[in-house]
Amino acid sequence: MKKFFVGLALATIAFTGAASAQEAPFAKQIKARQGIMVYRALNIGVLGAMAKGEVEYNAEAAQKAADALVSSGKLDVSMLYVPGSSNAENPDSTVKPEVFTEDLGIGAKAADFNTAAEAMQAAAGGGLDGLKAAMGPLGKSCGGCHEVARIPQN
Amino acid sequence: MKKFFVGLALATIAFTGAASAQEAPFAKQIKARQGIMVYRALNIGVLGAMAKGEVEYNAEAAQKAADALVSSGKLDVSMLYVPGSSNAENPDSTVKPEVFTEDLGIGAKAADFNTAAEAMQAAAGGGLDGLKAAMGPLGKSCGGCHEVARIPQN
Repeated sequence: MKKFFVGLALATIAFTGAASAQEAPFAKQIKARQGIMVYRALNIGVLGAMAKGEVEYNAEAAQKAADALVSSGKLDVSMLYVPGSSNAENPDSTVKPEVFTEDLGIGAKAADFNTAAEAMQAAAGGGLDGLKAAMGPLGKSCGGCHEVARIPQN
Repeated sequence: MKKFFVGLALATIAFTGAASAQEAPFAKQIKARQGIMVYRALNIGVLGAMAKGEVEYNAEAAQKAADALVSSGKLDVSMLYVPGSSNAENPDSTVKPEVFTEDLGIGAKAADFNTAAEAMQAAAGGGLDGLKAAMGPLGKSCGGCHEVARIPQN
């Protein structure tokens, strides 16, 4: 068992060394897109916690989170989704390779997110009921893209 | 020497184990803000390569990069810069601890970036000379914040 760990550790070092000598493909693009996704997740988390009653409804905080989602949807991320930057070429990526070889309707799915985020923006500051009602379509719009484009997460 | 590497490797494993058992403080906020910074760096890189003559000037690509910088400046990132998320608490962060304890004028420095990005947006598509002229203030606005707020990078 100990031998296994040492072997694994040496493999880790070898990999790390290789990564610094020659950076994994599109590491920056992957870091940027994952950071933007985490930004969205954090803000959806603020809204979701209120919707589930885990956190008391706060109009100002809800509005701020919804505004952040809308702003994030206005970022042009096309330069980050470069052929050769999928999970097949770089295991740090969770993007399926077919994103770059098939028409998965990603553009329409991104537009769905923007529509749902704008609906949340219109509702979030106006009360918990409106926030809850906007939560379903928003979550669905995230899932719509993740289902076709993202390697399933544990 | 070999012993050193094995020791280092085991330490790496121990650290990784600890990190998964209990996530480092504000890991998501740090990932989001670094991702957004990398997004900016990639787009500044497009403009910088043209300014330096490493890549041929392309009005459309320059405009796209400048637009991306302006959009990134419209993201509210205040929820990502949380007290307790500096390099002192989480070595993954490059944010100096004094960002959360002193008034470093970060708000004004962020506004400088937005102003410089908007000037680049107005100039980038109109020719290489304008792009070059807008490059200096843009780089200076990045540096203005990095100097006071970021741990020096190698």
